[in-house]
Amino acid sequence: MSSTQVVLGIDIGGTNTAFGLVDEKGKCYLNDQIQTDRHSSVESFLIKLFEAFNLQFEQIKDDFELIGIGLGAPSANYFKGTIDNPTNFSWGYVDIVKLIQTQYALPVVVTNDANAAAIGELKYGAAKGLNNFIEITLGTGLGSGIVVNGSLFHGHDGFAGELGHMIIEDKGRICNCGRRGCLETYVSANGIRRTVFELLSIYSVESCLRDYSYNSLTSKLIYEAALKNDEIAKMAFERTAEKLGKALANYVVLLNPEAIVLFGGLALAGDQILGPLNHHFENSLLNLYKGKVKILLSSLMEYKNAAILGAAAIIWEEIHKKSRDLQMQVIT
Amino acid sequence: MSSTQVVLGIDIGGTNTAFGLVDEKGKCYLNDQIQTDRHSSVESFLIKLFEAFNLQFEQIKDDFELIGIGLGAPSANYFKGTIDNPTNFSWGYVDIVKLIQTQYALPVVVTNDANAAAIGELKYGAAKGLNNFIEITLGTGLGSGIVVNGSLFHGHDGFAGELGHMIIEDKGRICNCGRRGCLETYVSANGIRRTVFELLSIYSVESCLRDYSYNSLTSKLIYEAALKNDEIAKMAFERTAEKLGKALANYVVLLNPEAIVLFGGLALAGDQILGPLNHHFENSLLNLYKGKVKILLSSLMEYKNAAILGAAAIIWEEIHKKSRDLQMQVIT
Repeated sequence: MSSTQVVLGIDIGGTNTAFGLVDEKGKCYLNDQIQTDRHSSVESFLIKLFEAFNLQFEQIKDDFELIGIGLGAPSANYFKGTIDNPTNFSWGYVDIVKLIQTQYALPVVVTNDANAAAIGELKYGAAKGLNNFIEITLGTGLGSGIVVNGSLFHGHDGFAGELGHMIIEDKGRICNCGRRGCLETYVSANGIRRTVFELLSIYSVESCLRDYSYNSLTSKLIYEAALKNDEIAKMAFERTAEKLGKALANYVVLLNPEAIVLFGGLALAGDQILGPLNHHFENSLLNLYKGKVKILLSSLMEYKNAAILGAAAIIWEEIHKKSRDLQMQVIT
Repeated sequence: MSSTQVVLGIDIGGTNTAFGLVDEKGKCYLNDQIQTDRHSSVESFLIKLFEAFNLQFEQIKDDFELIGIGLGAPSANYFKGTIDNPTNFSWGYVDIVKLIQTQYALPVVVTNDANAAAIGELKYGAAKGLNNFIEITLGTGLGSGIVVNGSLFHGHDGFAGELGHMIIEDKGRICNCGRRGCLETYVSANGIRRTVFELLSIYSVESCLRDYSYNSLTSKLIYEAALKNDEIAKMAFERTAEKLGKALANYVVLLNPEAIVLFGGLALAGDQILGPLNHHFENSLLNLYKGKVKILLSSLMEYKNAAILGAAAIIWEEIHKKSRDLQMQVIT
């Protein structure tokens, strides 16, 4: 009986870590999750993770051949195979690829969440068939993964695609990175909350958002208020879209992509963000590019397990790249 | 007797067009120029150009094998092989690769001046051995050529690398492109002249630059004034460097290059620009990149014929790419 080749995709998040077995076409055969934040050391985390995985894999393993493991994680470095002092856990600097390979003699690769989302989008989502695009992940912060000439672009030492830290406002909002005016201080779940508080301080118009403390206000609440035509909430989306539209237009003059794909929480706000975003983006573009660059919503988000698909996609891409490189070596 | 393989590099400028025969190692065997602006049609320009070339080539052609032609030109599109309404001539939309190939059955390729400079730098200059860098050409305007993973990056339809049109100032200076606040309105020979005039209007300090009309002021005069410690001139360099440093730091978060190479007029100002540029660049960088990205001066500029070398380099790169692609086809 022939077995199906699959990879293990692992998405390490601040609270939970999700994992699943994924075949080449994106079909998911097993998926589950464990809590990330229960583990103060990466070693105990990995023991728990592979215990949970093996428990399920044991029952079906005769039908599958596991050929690689892909991880999406915050502060990950693709070239070094490390996770370097992630903000949300106390693991320090972790040689995660090496740690996993002591247990699994397989190709293992790690990259950050936004890169994983970009490759997931390319392989299974809205970017299928595209060669040059950027994936913007809108969560607590703003991440990005850049695809050039059909492959993920890592840059010189693995840190390309930090669009969230493009400075868009001289002497602007204080950013966690220690600088001021970074895009993600305006465009992210946290950024739009800051914008609401700025607007509440400037205008005296009625708003249901005046009933929330800073800590209790979420981007979901802002979205719901906008749907009910709350002026402050609508203005907040408009301003967020303006900042993002202008930043993306600046991105286009550099890399001339065919599309920009939006993924994550804020992107779920649909027309509230897409309408004004398209307007400001087109308005800000250099003539040369007008009407040529599409802004798309991720179609990965339709999957319950989008992040697992992303993590799986990066190891599939790696396996294919290895086989191409091998072919090249044969002929040179 | 074996003949040396050479390519013809042609640099089409607004006033003059320079050309030369260049071997793989960058040795130049013949070079000359004709006037570009004498020709109101591209056809008469090409006749004159190849007349001038053949006159010289006839005498040495037994020693050489011409295997390709590379062109650097304003408003050129690599994918289409065209020059599209260059600002400085009245040629309109020109299918230049096709036109040349009616006379020469050879690989011909065209790209814009900044891309040609980037590939020239990679093959013969300060970027030898680098895989990820950006070449900034500082002339009347500001151009850029992006090298990723060791190759020139063209983007989706050939228009990547328009760094000069990154908007750095909301409601900033009017740009020829019809928008406002583009980097090249601040950082270029023309940009620094505008800065001098802004500074003369703000400050009342003595300056030898108060004796020049706008039309008579050149960046060379500003440079000479700065060397004599003219305050306005020094402030102008400082401000130019600040704008460029901040823009380059924003470029780094996207593409994580290993170096940035400066080419052209303003780059010749050496320490007047490099000193404050390094300061503002490092200060503006996200921590992650601090101390890791070098700013280099082009070493192509030491050649009298830097632009010819660039144009030659793009066709050499093309010829190598074709041979790699052919090898790939053999194995797939």
